[in-house]
Amino acid sequence: MNLDELYSELTLKSKTKMALLVMDGLGDIATKEQNYLTPLEAAVTPNLDALAKNSAQGRLIPVAPGITPGSGPGHLGLFGYDPLEFQVGRGVIEALGLGLELKPGDVCARANFATLDAKGIVTDRRAGRIPTEVCEKMVALLSAKIKKIGDTQVIIKAGKEHRFVVVFRGKGLEGPLTDADPNREGLPIPTVKPRDAKNLKQKKTAKLIADFYKLALPILKNEKPANGFLMRGIAHQPEIPLFEERYKLKPACLAVYPMYKGLAQLVGMTKIEGPTTIREQFERAVAEYDNYDFFFVHFKYTDKYGEDGNFPAKKKAIEEFDAALPILLKKKFDVIAITGDHSTPCALHGHSWHPQPVLLHSATSGSDKLERFTETGANSGSLGIMPAKFLIRLMQANAKMFDKFGA
Amino acid sequence: MNLDELYSELTLKSKTKMALLVMDGLGDIATKEQNYLTPLEAAVTPNLDALAKNSAQGRLIPVAPGITPGSGPGHLGLFGYDPLEFQVGRGVIEALGLGLELKPGDVCARANFATLDAKGIVTDRRAGRIPTEVCEKMVALLSAKIKKIGDTQVIIKAGKEHRFVVVFRGKGLEGPLTDADPNREGLPIPTVKPRDAKNLKQKKTAKLIADFYKLALPILKNEKPANGFLMRGIAHQPEIPLFEERYKLKPACLAVYPMYKGLAQLVGMTKIEGPTTIREQFERAVAEYDNYDFFFVHFKYTDKYGEDGNFPAKKKAIEEFDAALPILLKKKFDVIAITGDHSTPCALHGHSWHPQPVLLHSATSGSDKLERFTETGANSGSLGIMPAKFLIRLMQANAKMFDKFGA
Repeated sequence: MNLDELYSELTLKSKTKMALLVMDGLGDIATKEQNYLTPLEAAVTPNLDALAKNSAQGRLIPVAPGITPGSGPGHLGLFGYDPLEFQVGRGVIEALGLGLELKPGDVCARANFATLDAKGIVTDRRAGRIPTEVCEKMVALLSAKIKKIGDTQVIIKAGKEHRFVVVFRGKGLEGPLTDADPNREGLPIPTVKPRDAKNLKQKKTAKLIADFYKLALPILKNEKPANGFLMRGIAHQPEIPLFEERYKLKPACLAVYPMYKGLAQLVGMTKIEGPTTIREQFERAVAEYDNYDFFFVHFKYTDKYGEDGNFPAKKKAIEEFDAALPILLKKKFDVIAITGDHSTPCALHGHSWHPQPVLLHSATSGSDKLERFTETGANSGSLGIMPAKFLIRLMQANAKMFDKFGA
Repeated sequence: MNLDELYSELTLKSKTKMALLVMDGLGDIATKEQNYLTPLEAAVTPNLDALAKNSAQGRLIPVAPGITPGSGPGHLGLFGYDPLEFQVGRGVIEALGLGLELKPGDVCARANFATLDAKGIVTDRRAGRIPTEVCEKMVALLSAKIKKIGDTQVIIKAGKEHRFVVVFRGKGLEGPLTDADPNREGLPIPTVKPRDAKNLKQKKTAKLIADFYKLALPILKNEKPANGFLMRGIAHQPEIPLFEERYKLKPACLAVYPMYKGLAQLVGMTKIEGPTTIREQFERAVAEYDNYDFFFVHFKYTDKYGEDGNFPAKKKAIEEFDAALPILLKKKFDVIAITGDHSTPCALHGHSWHPQPVLLHSATSGSDKLERFTETGANSGSLGIMPAKFLIRLMQANAKMFDKFGA
């Protein structure tokens, strides 16, 4: 029997309130330069400490040992979907990141403006990194002239600098396709092809991209330096089993950045709009307490400062999160999990494969007798070092949502 | 290559003696109310402590994260059989629990007497919880008149109060079937159906159950209040690869309660009858030392008092086990594993999903330098937090029963 089927069969419909608090990129590594402390270990966190005393801890492997995830697989894993089984194309992630509301089946491509010579050879893959305002102007130009190709709706949205995304919304489209990107200068833009030569929907979609180029390149012909563009990560939004059906929990998302709202939306969470700070997010969760069973709260700054390699700022972000935590704790949540979607060690200036620490607090979690919530402490917690995709299952167990298996 | 095939291929025939000591429901959680101690941590256990110093420790996940197992999956996992692959129906477990000697292919149903009105509508699903003696009388009535249906032998045995089991022994029978139980009063007894509509053996078995009802209901017609009965968990005893073939170890079971003897018998262990206390079980293991390679010793009381939520009694049961341990240690066992089949936290008054602690002692186990055997210590042991089904494989490795894999 398939394990997901078993969980599903054992799930009892129960009244419960849960909160999954994600400090993006929380995990870090202790180095000599950092006095052998991680930002979480160096931070002053009285509220997390108080929770830790009555919690279980462990570490979560986002995808598989050694795999560094992007935000997509990181969050899908946390939401309990195997990131290898449910792959979200780069184009889809970029579109979500720009705040586009996608529908299942939408094909998305990340694109960027480029410079072509008279023969169509790519001479600058980033068109001299044109400013965002120029990008917006070019996108407006394209959008005004290309709204539909046949029955397919075309949505174009500008990003930062030379970046933009294109969404194709129509029937019978499917990715993934090969890239319309030579990956280096001195070559023409390659024609996109189906990744699976036998897939007729991919074939149709490849034709659509070719038609899009035929319409778009003439529009840009006289522009400088952005007289061309490249497209990558062309894929459709996958069908993902809905969170509410999977867990029998009504989920809400409290995120500030569009990408995380988009990832939550992918699994069917309701986006609660408005809050812009972690204090406001917690206040809103409390205000919406009666309306949902499961609150996903996303905090960006631990990741941001990890990417910057800014140890003091990452530490301070954790302290801000900690200081805001009592706002959430005014309401009684049956299960609270606090973790990251991956590690973003300051020393590495980017995402990493190191398992992120997790704290699981409930009346049934038991205590691992750890005085604080830290990477080193979590190593000896009762949750062990486990795949992230099991976290919500454990939260369900802690909420007594599962019947006993077998007699 | 399949992992079981690999283990099998690497297994060397060796002379070894092993003991798997199962304190049922051993694992527990530390709560504030328990002064942050588990019963195992609170207990005085000089003999376990002495072993711990020269042992490895870890924790075992009985089935999968968050899954609370019954005794069936709990023990099958410990015996090294994936509980998802080898599922034992509720009827089989109940039959084993009543001490019935089952044969592979036997179809078992748990049943209970019920009250029906003149139209056959269930008015009391438990027939007013008739006393056990009444149940025994009714079962004797049925047994006397129904011994066979066609070529199929019918075995009926009374349980506690309104409960009984029915075993069908014949050719070409198979479960699982749907329940002959409306699950609430006010409805008639539903006709059982194959779970897999295309399975001809299940179809035949469903017909057999219908025939059993046709014969049995008239016998009970004038009884009060037990003039009917419901049947659930109708399944056959699965074919499970024999323990001795799988591990090249001759196994014996020293259990007091019928269910655990039954589970041991499912995998082909020899039941050693007689002992009723843990001291007697250990004495008998020592007496039978030369006759078997692998001794499964089952101790019930840790689970019993966990279910009762009786912390002092669970602690005392552990101390009794510890006090008896030197009896076993008079003989030299090459590998000793001490664990539970799952956790039964006092605070939860029942089985749970929390991984149970395990101690593995042998000349090759190494020492995890832990002074005691506890849940918290086990969290940081060298065995990690791993699926229970690998325990016997580790015991085999400790006994040097595996050849090297590859050059």
